[in-house]
Amino acid sequence: MIIGGDGYCGWATALHLSNKGYEVAIVDNLVRRLFDHQLGIDSLTPISSIQNRVRRWKSVTGKSIQLFIGDICDFEFLSEAFKSFEPDSAVHFGEQRSAPYSMIDRSRAVYTQHNNVIGTLNVLFAIKEFSQECHLVKLGTMGEYGTPNIDIEEGYITITHNGRTDTLPYPKQASSFYHLSKVHDSHNIAFTCKAWGIRATDLNQGVVYGVRTDETDMHEELCNRFDYDGVFGTALNRFCVQAVVGHPLTVYGKGGQTRGYLDIRDTVQCVELAIANPAKPGLGVQTISVPNPRVEAEEHYYNAKHTKLVELGLRPHLLSESLLDSLLNFAIKFKDRVDTAQIMPTVSWKKIGVKTRTVSV
Amino acid sequence: MIIGGDGYCGWATALHLSNKGYEVAIVDNLVRRLFDHQLGIDSLTPISSIQNRVRRWKSVTGKSIQLFIGDICDFEFLSEAFKSFEPDSAVHFGEQRSAPYSMIDRSRAVYTQHNNVIGTLNVLFAIKEFSQECHLVKLGTMGEYGTPNIDIEEGYITITHNGRTDTLPYPKQASSFYHLSKVHDSHNIAFTCKAWGIRATDLNQGVVYGVRTDETDMHEELCNRFDYDGVFGTALNRFCVQAVVGHPLTVYGKGGQTRGYLDIRDTVQCVELAIANPAKPGLGVQTISVPNPRVEAEEHYYNAKHTKLVELGLRPHLLSESLLDSLLNFAIKFKDRVDTAQIMPTVSWKKIGVKTRTVSV
Ligand SMILES: NC(=O)c1ccc[n+]([C@@H]2O[C@H](COP(=O)([O-])OP(=O)(O)OC[C@H]3O[C@@H](n4cnc5c(N)ncnc54)[C@H](O)[C@@H]3O)[C@@H](O)[C@H]2O)c1
Ligand SMILES: NC(=O)c1ccc[n+]([C@@H]2O[C@H](COP(=O)([O-])OP(=O)(O)OC[C@H]3O[C@@H](n4cnc5c(N)ncnc54)[C@H](O)[C@@H]3O)[C@@H](O)[C@H]2O)c1
Repeated sequence: MIIGGDGYCGWATALHLSNKGYEVAIVDNLVRRLFDHQLGIDSLTPISSIQNRVRRWKSVTGKSIQLFIGDICDFEFLSEAFKSFEPDSAVHFGEQRSAPYSMIDRSRAVYTQHNNVIGTLNVLFAIKEFSQECHLVKLGTMGEYGTPNIDIEEGYITITHNGRTDTLPYPKQASSFYHLSKVHDSHNIAFTCKAWGIRATDLNQGVVYGVRTDETDMHEELCNRFDYDGVFGTALNRFCVQAVVGHPLTVYGKGGQTRGYLDIRDTVQCVELAIANPAKPGLGVQTISVPNPRVEAEEHYYNAKHTKLVELGLRPHLLSESLLDSLLNFAIKFKDRVDTAQIMPTVSWKKIGVKTRTVSV
Repeated sequence: MIIGGDGYCGWATALHLSNKGYEVAIVDNLVRRLFDHQLGIDSLTPISSIQNRVRRWKSVTGKSIQLFIGDICDFEFLSEAFKSFEPDSAVHFGEQRSAPYSMIDRSRAVYTQHNNVIGTLNVLFAIKEFSQECHLVKLGTMGEYGTPNIDIEEGYITITHNGRTDTLPYPKQASSFYHLSKVHDSHNIAFTCKAWGIRATDLNQGVVYGVRTDETDMHEELCNRFDYDGVFGTALNRFCVQAVVGHPLTVYGKGGQTRGYLDIRDTVQCVELAIANPAKPGLGVQTISVPNPRVEAEEHYYNAKHTKLVELGLRPHLLSESLLDSLLNFAIKFKDRVDTAQIMPTVSWKKIGVKTRTVSV
């Protein structure tokens, strides 16, 4: 079951798993498409409706994907999806995942935390009630850890303090209401693993770039979205589009930030590996970091361990090789669809106010 | 401004501060009184309405307390309270604070996290929008830290790892949807301190016992509530009532748990000290632990530092001395009001289900 399967990572993952022979269902309320309308932004690539996407996939591969259109904050809807599909694994992408969106105004900060935290609580309760054995693969973010001056370990850290030692959850330092909602999720999930024996993997993922995957390349109607705007566009995707249309690169502040990035083809690979290696029950949530590659930077120390997935067989696509064939070519192909008005960041962390804003992109 | 000022800790604090010459406003939607009706439980002591309480305080001391009856999740209401009262300090008690209540069923788990997290977000936004200088004193709980095998520091811990060192937020390990909501609050508050320069003190408080304070003793109608039931009653209060009516003490499991306890008179003292020593802006949330006293136990290590408040002048009431004159005498005085049906715990962490339960006390 792919929660958020109409989205950037979810759609690529749904097709990849279906192609590998998994029986796949998509759960999505399509709210991401509403955000585009509300903010006056759009994907660089034209994307077809979820209904046409699923129909096209069936005609191209003969494989069916079940569709459950609804909000996971509506527990009645979510229960029906679980009772009908009886998932063995639930991959949870289905959240409001833009940091700038969560900092536009009070109502969107509150929406982000409510949608993400209550949605995830409902998924945990649905698993407990209807599918105890179901393995939850939850998308977290490396942003939960912030940028500490020590190595970032995968989920837990062994601390020796005043002569005693314990292995404790790695300290969290989130820097937006969106990243904070992921921290809340991680704590809620960790508790249900201990209290109910839920099997969960928290995939703390770095920033994703790229748009092409083997499956979405099979037909125009299967094409994935490509966000380059200041609210949902992720750094590398934004920079490529800016380069192609000759817009100065929008580097924030001194630009010394260091983050882990990964090709979307590695997102789907990591999810597949996580599903194939489900967490054991009651062991506490298994947390895997998925940043790639590791870069040292002068502004702040950033050394995020990510060995677990490599040990499970991840063969990452390195940045250079895939960047050109995937990103720039795409940006060039859809150059005339670029609306430069959408490029500049329009959200300030400091100026966020209580009045609901109509974002002037 | 005392958010949750009709409650157990809030009412005692409101009177104490008013008595000390502070201008006091109470903000409360009285939902705690609704929980009593819904769960068929009641305070051991008869408590008068908030309106009569405030009227009696005025007649006894000549001091007025302003009343704002409403829900802090309703931002319009909260804005009016802030704009009208213009608080210099906001003490935030106003949450659903029972761990068992949060574990009754899905709807109450969701209610607890929504009410507490969104309520606190609204308070932060109200401070940012209407009273930037206002000092937030937020009630946290020692339960946020769980029971680690190392000393519990106050909010932050300095970690040396792989040859590098940093001071990071102390790892959180909450064990109910209620305690988790407090962890969420702490992370949200810490972020707004950094991003907006909000002045905040996170008072991680241990379990409160006792019912009498100087001010609530001034008149029968000022009397504070005393919870002894299995959902809202805190351990020591419960044990005292059980002892007085000859009911076996309801020790959970092997009974090796160790927690910090404090007399309600120290709760009001700590809040007063916290207000008198506001956090500096932009320094990150100031976190103070308020467990008392420190006890070694064979089941698990529990050593929670709590020096900051003592340094600020806290003179704690030790357990033995205050216990008798406060608790037992009270329990004896209201012995015939005790409803033994309310004593046994009726909520199981494991059996929590998705159907909304009518708790059979
Ligand atoms: N894109 C990245 O660079 C990146 C990086 C790290 C982590 N992640 C995580 O991966 C996940 C997916 O990211 P994405 O880029 O595909 O986001 P996206 O916005 O493109 O997709 C999210 C999908 O979830 C759906 N959704 C949201 N709330 C829902 C609800 N309440 N009920 C049902 N459906 C709902 C949306 O309609 C959308 O289709 C997110 O959780 C995000 O935090 C993404
Ligand atoms: N009692 C303890 O032993 C203890 C221990 C540690 C921490 N604390 C903390 O101290 C605080 C107060 O505890 P208490 O024992 O007085 O609880 P309480 O339930 O007696 O009082 C809480 C008050 O807040 C009000 N409230 C709740 N949600 C509200 C909302 N959305 N809008 C307006 N008012 C709302 C309730 O009506 C109630 O009057 C809580 O945050 C609790 O976590 C209490």
